[in-house]
Amino acid sequence: MFLRDCWYVVAWSHEVPSQGLLARTVVGDALVLFRTQDGIVAALADRCCHRLAPLSRGRHEGDCLRCGYHGLLFDARGQCVEVPGMETVPPRLAVRSYPVVEHNRWVFVWMGDPARADRSLLPDNFSCDHPDWVYRPGYLHYEVPWQLIADNLLDFSHLSYVHEATLGGSRAIAQARPRIEPIERGLRIERAVHSVPAPPYYAALRTFDGAIDRWFNYDFLLPATLLMDSGGRVQGAAAGDPNHEVRLHSCQTLTPETESSTHYFFQQAHPRWLGNEKTTEGLYQGLVRAFEEDRAMIGAQYAAIGRGGDLSMMSLPMDAALLQFRRLVERELAREAAWLSGNGASAGLG
Amino acid sequence: MFLRDCWYVVAWSHEVPSQGLLARTVVGDALVLFRTQDGIVAALADRCCHRLAPLSRGRHEGDCLRCGYHGLLFDARGQCVEVPGMETVPPRLAVRSYPVVEHNRWVFVWMGDPARADRSLLPDNFSCDHPDWVYRPGYLHYEVPWQLIADNLLDFSHLSYVHEATLGGSRAIAQARPRIEPIERGLRIERAVHSVPAPPYYAALRTFDGAIDRWFNYDFLLPATLLMDSGGRVQGAAAGDPNHEVRLHSCQTLTPETESSTHYFFQQAHPRWLGNEKTTEGLYQGLVRAFEEDRAMIGAQYAAIGRGGDLSMMSLPMDAALLQFRRLVERELAREAAWLSGNGASAGLG
Amino acid sequence: MFLRDCWYVVAWSHEVPSQGLLARTVVGDALVLFRTQDGIVAALADRCCHRLAPLSRGRHEGDCLRCGYHGLLFDARGQCVEVPGMETVPPRLAVRSYPVVEHNRWVFVWMGDPARADRSLLPDNFSCDHPDWVYRPGYLHYEVPWQLIADNLLDFSHLSYVHEATLGGSRAIAQARPRIEPIERGLRIERAVHSVPAPPYYAALRTFDGAIDRWFNYDFLLPATLLMDSGGRVQGAAAGDPNHEVRLHSCQTLTPETESSTHYFFQQAHPRWLGNEKTTEGLYQGLVRAFEEDRAMIGAQYAAIGRGGDLSMMSLPMDAALLQFRRLVERELAREAAWLSGNGASAGLG
Repeated sequence: MFLRDCWYVVAWSHEVPSQGLLARTVVGDALVLFRTQDGIVAALADRCCHRLAPLSRGRHEGDCLRCGYHGLLFDARGQCVEVPGMETVPPRLAVRSYPVVEHNRWVFVWMGDPARADRSLLPDNFSCDHPDWVYRPGYLHYEVPWQLIADNLLDFSHLSYVHEATLGGSRAIAQARPRIEPIERGLRIERAVHSVPAPPYYAALRTFDGAIDRWFNYDFLLPATLLMDSGGRVQGAAAGDPNHEVRLHSCQTLTPETESSTHYFFQQAHPRWLGNEKTTEGLYQGLVRAFEEDRAMIGAQYAAIGRGGDLSMMSLPMDAALLQFRRLVERELAREAAWLSGNGASAGLG
Repeated sequence: MFLRDCWYVVAWSHEVPSQGLLARTVVGDALVLFRTQDGIVAALADRCCHRLAPLSRGRHEGDCLRCGYHGLLFDARGQCVEVPGMETVPPRLAVRSYPVVEHNRWVFVWMGDPARADRSLLPDNFSCDHPDWVYRPGYLHYEVPWQLIADNLLDFSHLSYVHEATLGGSRAIAQARPRIEPIERGLRIERAVHSVPAPPYYAALRTFDGAIDRWFNYDFLLPATLLMDSGGRVQGAAAGDPNHEVRLHSCQTLTPETESSTHYFFQQAHPRWLGNEKTTEGLYQGLVRAFEEDRAMIGAQYAAIGRGGDLSMMSLPMDAALLQFRRLVERELAREAAWLSGNGASAGLG
Repeated sequence: MFLRDCWYVVAWSHEVPSQGLLARTVVGDALVLFRTQDGIVAALADRCCHRLAPLSRGRHEGDCLRCGYHGLLFDARGQCVEVPGMETVPPRLAVRSYPVVEHNRWVFVWMGDPARADRSLLPDNFSCDHPDWVYRPGYLHYEVPWQLIADNLLDFSHLSYVHEATLGGSRAIAQARPRIEPIERGLRIERAVHSVPAPPYYAALRTFDGAIDRWFNYDFLLPATLLMDSGGRVQGAAAGDPNHEVRLHSCQTLTPETESSTHYFFQQAHPRWLGNEKTTEGLYQGLVRAFEEDRAMIGAQYAAIGRGGDLSMMSLPMDAALLQFRRLVERELAREAAWLSGNGASAGLG
């Protein structure tokens, strides 16, 4: 059961080539992506309507895609425009196409009713394409349901334990209580810790002589996108003082692949003036190392859940945000179901 | 659901050694094969009636097979003839045996009622054992249901796309319409294309300076055997003119292993006078390369089907033969079911 | 369906470190083991009560274990004693703990009602920790249900076939009929063979010039523990004559991991006066080689069973002990079920 009336990130822009095809599955639907000669990204169902062969094993031809099994040719709207050996093509020969928007280097697909696709619902992932911010793009594939990863991102108390040697470095993070505020389609979460050592992760950016204050302020938005301002500052220094402060901006998003696997697109950007290519690479490597720590823990958690038995979870104060977000998702799922059934009912009257 | 009252190829003759055992599964039944001292092939259920250990982990002893777990000895009819520590062997100790025929280097087993085993139903795979024809025997294991491979063999339009760089070489093959004719237990399919380049596959046999005419004439017979006369000829040359013609004979057969896996035995023979060992090897390697192209595509098709959702296929004129053959299989399955139920009914009267 | 009111071996003593954790699953329950500072072994459910992460990915801290995800700290009884960011810990925060006994270098856990844990049910695995006996500890992991391995251990006629080149060496073993006697919670089985060649396995101990008499006398006890006195003696020599005799003591036990996998702990000890470290190592290697023969055969048997179809087994005289033991297990399972339901009934009256 997935939300469908929303934009999911299906790829980084550079993953969809100007020549060639990209196959990727989103909320259970296998998609094939390619660019028309104008560079516009098209997303079609990755299964030929003839004998069900995946179109991604075919060939990109101009604005079209040819099935590699029997040669049917489809345009960017999914309409079949050529069948070998047939004079005219039956109009019913078509595959589903999906609305696509390319926005700040993320390629989004709309998995619900195309008529309801709404660009105003795109997140403000500005630092993915901004002259003042620099990053290296990241991707991880998870063999767990997206919800467990969202839980992880909604409770940073795990930084003290899972990421002790990377992003964390202090038990104070787990002891702090974040401020949680409902916002349009999501939550705003703000966590501050005072007088802690700089985390090992900061070493790629700069060293601090003593304790610093740190903050993690982020929005977590439907379907599962994190947009975060985080940083650390020498105690007593003025906010914005570049000599005593580190400030980062991060965009991360979870796209369910199937019920039990998830795409994770992420970046953590640093200001362009702070460092060079080596800084960017160091930050990226540190982030990947930390996210592998998450992946190992969440994978183990999912395996433990898979053993069955009593699966009740005892909730604690640290779970406040993740419980609120789970309820938000439930409400949206109910709203989609109601809309679909209402729509079906009125269609039935026609 | 498999046809049972028919001969399935279980092995090439050389795969069943004079000493030793061969384990192979056919339509879901695990078999163990061995040769008696007279060279006759025996096929038994590969599961001891005592504690269900596979007999293929045992030992060939003369005309018998000894279970490797507790030492029970079985003869070629499946009867247990010795139990360690017992004076007399209970007659109920037996495993199922299957009728076997070795015919033109193919070993056939009859998977239905042994009383109905009928040698007249063997296919004419003459080129597998004929002094005028030379080939190297081929085998591929498929992790897909046999039906998808039969579909492939019943519509050669895929040669233009799947085998563009091997057996095909021209889109004219897909544009041609074959003649399809029902025959006893199968279909006869004839496809001709005119004035096309020789396919890359022919390079092992000979080169042609210009365009040629090609033909593919084959019978496709129950359960799933293809017997084909194919070739290419310089335009305007007389049929049978060895200086301007290539002619091949191919025997191919699909044997379901399980509901989702298939044995594929095949050869493509060239006339003995045309070439030498290098020709034979080149032809074989070209064929294997092409059949790996099929296996990749059909495996991808099967994976796409396995993702579920709407699995309806939109049929096109090119599907005529495969649809007719699917109907033929359905009729045979119904006939077997009727016979079994009729047989049960009359047995009930006895 | 497993017996629960019994002691299962979960580990060799040396597998549970003084610092660190050991994860192991017994009868479907995932456990994590560690030692308190006094060296006492604790066994807890390997799943945090908070978000279900496996505790074995956490950290051993003194007498406690800290979850590696969000930092909850549990004591050896499974009680949570610290939650990051909370002043007081809710008493309901706890995971299940299991009774543990360390006895002759085997670590036993009681998987049933802790109130019924009964040390008098521990087996007499004396040779695992006795100054006169020497061995190297063994462990194998089986991907089959424990019952098939118990069947194997309860019928040594397989030594003639499975272990022809290792423990067996003569068909006389299969031809001999053992004496089988019911004992408290098990069976006593005695098998003697006369005038046979020494088995290849004895080569690590000593060579014999001619034929010997051999004996295999063992108890097989619930849940699945074998305690065996075995040996070989020159024909006509006096029992106990060290110059003409080999005598071994073996302790082996099966611990179900899941419905389809099993832990196998074993040792075969020789008297200290007979040989040196090389002898011990040779005996161990020979035993492992033989047990790999079993594992291959039983794995193949389990795969053959997994293919389904008619799974009836035709029982023979050699199956007497294994059938008796299977009935004993059934009786014990029924007794446990009756006790549980009786207990539930009387609880219902309260």
